[in-house]
Amino acid sequence: MTGGKEREKLLMGPGPSNVHPRVLASLASPMIGHLDPDFLEVMNEVRDLLRLVFQTENRLTLAMSGTGSAGMETCLVNLIEPGDRVLVAVEGYFGERMVEMASRCGADLTVLRVPWGEVLDPAAVETALRRGGHRLLAVVHGETSAGVLQPVEELAAIAHRHGALLVVDAAATLGGVPVLVDEWGIDACYSGSQKCLGCPPGLAPLSFSEAASRRLAERREPVRSWYLDLSLLQSYWGRDRFYHHTAPVSMLFALREALRMVAEEGLEERFRRHRENARALAAGLEAMGLELFVPETHRLATLTAVRVPAGVDGEVVRLGMMREHRIDMGAGLGELKGRVWRIGLMGMGASRRNVLFFLKSLEEVLRRQGFELPEGDGVRRADEAYATAPGGRLRVEGQTS
Amino acid sequence: MTGGKEREKLLMGPGPSNVHPRVLASLASPMIGHLDPDFLEVMNEVRDLLRLVFQTENRLTLAMSGTGSAGMETCLVNLIEPGDRVLVAVEGYFGERMVEMASRCGADLTVLRVPWGEVLDPAAVETALRRGGHRLLAVVHGETSAGVLQPVEELAAIAHRHGALLVVDAAATLGGVPVLVDEWGIDACYSGSQKCLGCPPGLAPLSFSEAASRRLAERREPVRSWYLDLSLLQSYWGRDRFYHHTAPVSMLFALREALRMVAEEGLEERFRRHRENARALAAGLEAMGLELFVPETHRLATLTAVRVPAGVDGEVVRLGMMREHRIDMGAGLGELKGRVWRIGLMGMGASRRNVLFFLKSLEEVLRRQGFELPEGDGVRRADEAYATAPGGRLRVEGQTS
Repeated sequence: MTGGKEREKLLMGPGPSNVHPRVLASLASPMIGHLDPDFLEVMNEVRDLLRLVFQTENRLTLAMSGTGSAGMETCLVNLIEPGDRVLVAVEGYFGERMVEMASRCGADLTVLRVPWGEVLDPAAVETALRRGGHRLLAVVHGETSAGVLQPVEELAAIAHRHGALLVVDAAATLGGVPVLVDEWGIDACYSGSQKCLGCPPGLAPLSFSEAASRRLAERREPVRSWYLDLSLLQSYWGRDRFYHHTAPVSMLFALREALRMVAEEGLEERFRRHRENARALAAGLEAMGLELFVPETHRLATLTAVRVPAGVDGEVVRLGMMREHRIDMGAGLGELKGRVWRIGLMGMGASRRNVLFFLKSLEEVLRRQGFELPEGDGVRRADEAYATAPGGRLRVEGQTS
Repeated sequence: MTGGKEREKLLMGPGPSNVHPRVLASLASPMIGHLDPDFLEVMNEVRDLLRLVFQTENRLTLAMSGTGSAGMETCLVNLIEPGDRVLVAVEGYFGERMVEMASRCGADLTVLRVPWGEVLDPAAVETALRRGGHRLLAVVHGETSAGVLQPVEELAAIAHRHGALLVVDAAATLGGVPVLVDEWGIDACYSGSQKCLGCPPGLAPLSFSEAASRRLAERREPVRSWYLDLSLLQSYWGRDRFYHHTAPVSMLFALREALRMVAEEGLEERFRRHRENARALAAGLEAMGLELFVPETHRLATLTAVRVPAGVDGEVVRLGMMREHRIDMGAGLGELKGRVWRIGLMGMGASRRNVLFFLKSLEEVLRRQGFELPEGDGVRRADEAYATAPGGRLRVEGQTS
């Protein structure tokens, strides 16, 4: 079995993140039927725990039987009818994916782009929507390709003012930084199981507001995808228990366990842990003379993009980190390929132990590449950042086994 | 954890089937990245083992990141363009699902139906195709709603004679009864991981012939679903390794292990085991005075439909089996709801131990329901069937832990 006997790899890319032994053990529970009352209870608990992490009371809250991208497609294909005007606001690779998917749904598309690494100006979004008739505004909350956190609170109000629903990609943020579906007024929100939630990849948590559910109920034609049709799926997840497809039973065991761990830690504590580890990582990287791709004001806590310094081959460093230290860090994606590394601190991966070990390892590998840097500065400054963090030293050290 | 401490349930419905501890243990392997070279090797091995079970050399062979229904939708959405003439031959519930999906793909549909429990007459299929212009013929190989095995060999030749590609649903047959993709000339074949392959639900093995791949390459417009677009997926599974979505890593560990077990047992031995256990079950049920829904000539070995006898409440019996014996047998689906039970013998579930225990348990529960039957006849006749099976007593007793 892969890795069974070996030392575990440290997953410090854009996800999947490392999975806690408790969650792995739950995966290996004996199989039960997808309509077994015991399994329906598992679904109920997953739904309730998802409401907690999405901070919502939305009835239509469930986990799609597919990966995060299936969550993206589910939101778009259920809410878009051919010819609908849709505005996609793009800050990176996954925004472009939304454009591609919305286009395949037959949307009449408007695309608003900012350079990667920047955030959208709400005024520009409002200007684009003012042209009128948009039924949907779609945006990525945490853009892992650039390491940007796009504030979405304001966008909801703007979208609603112009009669549009707001779709938010929370793949890299749910369970790691605040995502307040109800308070912010998000209409459709989706995520992936494998990042800040600490579950293996394979499920896409999702929540639809009452307005989004109404839009779904009032469609003129059926959803183009049967597999992703939420009007059918809500009957399976709801009281009817109407058979739709055979749910991925083991994965739902795992998601339940992962969500229980989120609930046990508490959302606020979890957000603080992600924030403080990201802050320490950033301090350490800068002390090593590296340049962060995104300014602090809109930097994503769960994924930090760092510029590959001049004269260094980013891929050689990445392979060195893997070979020598068993650290899997992310490469640049799309237009940032070869230009940045992407360092993820997600779920149980967001720990002081990982941050310090990562900085020490990177220092070694970079030095071997001929990059000159003062010894130990990264680790020292990261450690100082922990000491001066609001609330002092991290109370929870992460849950690395 | 569900069932962790309890005695395992015996899954004897239409799937999921019980999962071997070896497969469960592989699920719990530590997480690794979806682009990690170690994981790409897992994908390669899964692909090679899938070619073995599909008995094909098709380049485009992979496991979709979704359940069996996602496999169905993948075949249809990749091969159908809006306006395409499509013939769906229906023998039950899952044939109707194909009709629904093909319709959402924008197909110009022809539907040929036979009463549930019967098989399609190739001559009738040919007559329907003769009207001309059909680009696709879709059919279910093992229809679990009725317990019917539809021969598909002849249908391929007929389809090709009229310029149509043949799509076959092998959800309930792959790994349990012969599915010869290349020899029979199937163009697109899909299955689910959770039935005869003995893996948890969540993946959909799939294989496309060269002709189907060509059809895909020659599309006039993009596949309507981005998530299920095989032209993108084959770049991720192929040599390019072009990132598409984050593969469900743990599930692929499990599928690999399950497929290894299929390969170790050997396909012919596995088919024989499924066939002989089904034969013994049928003999036992008939000895108890129960009526099988499908005549032996086209009965599906992996799922046996039995009529609920007059005066017996099928659901009470099903619940009794679960409560008293921890046996999860299938209820009737769709138009057979309340009229049949569906008894699955799939994967490691196809064992003498399960057949005999099932018959004994059913006898007890039925008798309590006031159904009169001679004591022990079911078990005795099943046992005789094993003794007289071609090749004598089962060499492999299944792999129940």
